[in-house]
Amino acid sequence: MNSKELFEKIREKQSFLCVGLDSEFGKIPEFLKKEPNPVFEFNKRIIDATAPYAVAFKPNMAFYEAYGVSGWVNLRMTVDYLRANYPDMFLIADAKRGDIDNTSKLYAKAFFDTIGFDAVTVSPYMGDDSIKPFIGYKDKWVIILALTSNQGASAFQFTEDKYGGLMLFEKVISYSKKWGTVDNIMYVVGATKADLMKDVRRQAPDHFLLIPGVGAQGGSLAEIAKSGMNDQCGLLVNASRSIIFADSSENFAEIAAQKAMEMQQEMAKLLAEKFLI
Amino acid sequence: MNSKELFEKIREKQSFLCVGLDSEFGKIPEFLKKEPNPVFEFNKRIIDATAPYAVAFKPNMAFYEAYGVSGWVNLRMTVDYLRANYPDMFLIADAKRGDIDNTSKLYAKAFFDTIGFDAVTVSPYMGDDSIKPFIGYKDKWVIILALTSNQGASAFQFTEDKYGGLMLFEKVISYSKKWGTVDNIMYVVGATKADLMKDVRRQAPDHFLLIPGVGAQGGSLAEIAKSGMNDQCGLLVNASRSIIFADSSENFAEIAAQKAMEMQQEMAKLLAEKFLI
Repeated sequence: MNSKELFEKIREKQSFLCVGLDSEFGKIPEFLKKEPNPVFEFNKRIIDATAPYAVAFKPNMAFYEAYGVSGWVNLRMTVDYLRANYPDMFLIADAKRGDIDNTSKLYAKAFFDTIGFDAVTVSPYMGDDSIKPFIGYKDKWVIILALTSNQGASAFQFTEDKYGGLMLFEKVISYSKKWGTVDNIMYVVGATKADLMKDVRRQAPDHFLLIPGVGAQGGSLAEIAKSGMNDQCGLLVNASRSIIFADSSENFAEIAAQKAMEMQQEMAKLLAEKFLI
Repeated sequence: MNSKELFEKIREKQSFLCVGLDSEFGKIPEFLKKEPNPVFEFNKRIIDATAPYAVAFKPNMAFYEAYGVSGWVNLRMTVDYLRANYPDMFLIADAKRGDIDNTSKLYAKAFFDTIGFDAVTVSPYMGDDSIKPFIGYKDKWVIILALTSNQGASAFQFTEDKYGGLMLFEKVISYSKKWGTVDNIMYVVGATKADLMKDVRRQAPDHFLLIPGVGAQGGSLAEIAKSGMNDQCGLLVNASRSIIFADSSENFAEIAAQKAMEMQQEMAKLLAEKFLI
């Protein structure tokens, strides 16, 4: 999927919602824990309930790795289920990987070839050769951490470069955008940092941004759309806990659908206000 | 294991060698590929051959994840084999993880509890709350990327802070060392950057450093020891490809043992020169 096709999908569904499958075993409804693969059962029901309102799904690897081999089995089953039932959904591995060249190549293989994701998040700390191995796969994307949604983001991402004056998150975008195109690079920009969106858009006016931090972390969808939306939408807004763990009863999937629909309706309004639908 | 115990182990074995189990399926000897778990068979033989000369082993996750579920099975078998047969070996998960607080907690669970490593490498880009969840596990360590061995390290790690004048890798050490102690934090410093070791040691005189980049990447053991060794050694030097893939014949394990022994002998000499053994 290239950026134009992603925008078409957004227009078609009137949504730029990404549902984060941060499916922590300890938080899934009790009644599902009797199933042979409880996390997969949970994901399947969340996916079926929220897919009408979403253009993307994003499992975060930590919640699967925490359970070792069985976690990877659940991850694999989840991706296979998505591919079989929702073939044009955009699938992001939230992995935040990055290593020396020969090692990043293997991570790219893991996420793009072995599991079959469309995109993977990476950390830029190790520079060019840690990220370039993810670029150049046909129709695959790398999503580079720029300005993250957490409190700790300020520790290093706001370091102001003595030469050139950019803050580290701006420098990351300014450098890395030359390694690929708007069809294979996105950036992570936290919804909790809406006031810095103009600095992000100065460096990357045309790139898609993956926006975590709406929902449980407190970011505002309207503010993000106001400061970050471009003429191809240019946003994928992720919500995880506020949708998937909105309820822990037997009705959890319907409540998740309700939460996803509310976000989709707000998104439709925001897209309409920008005359994009 | 605390830093004193690690130093005792180094003195006992006259070695500060860490063997990197970057066991890429495509590179293991052909004759092993007929085995049911070729990567585990390869690791087992490498471990038995090189353990007499090493104090630590470090599987890099990418080489296991690239093969999905079966890769994780091989990783698990490898760690279980090490624990059963070499119970006092220091085991490092080279994972370069890091995420928001609730997610890093799950990565810590994955590597410390589920698989049972002693230490895990993390990327500092996301700051305090992405790393603190790894700190505070009894006898476990976090190993923070500071100055990496790859060419791309220069892209961001050398960013000079307009306020305070530190380069990013120095700032990472200066900040993060307050989050823990010399008994639960180490830093990654590439052997290819020996000329900057004095800047690292200015920030972290007493911390252990994990040094990749000797061997296939071209770093010099003598130079690293000269500039980086402290009065408790303070170094774990990793070699991966130059040991484990030194030979691809049926004698690969003996050749790996020979390469590990050569490094151990040089290390013994360097420790003796500093009067540490």
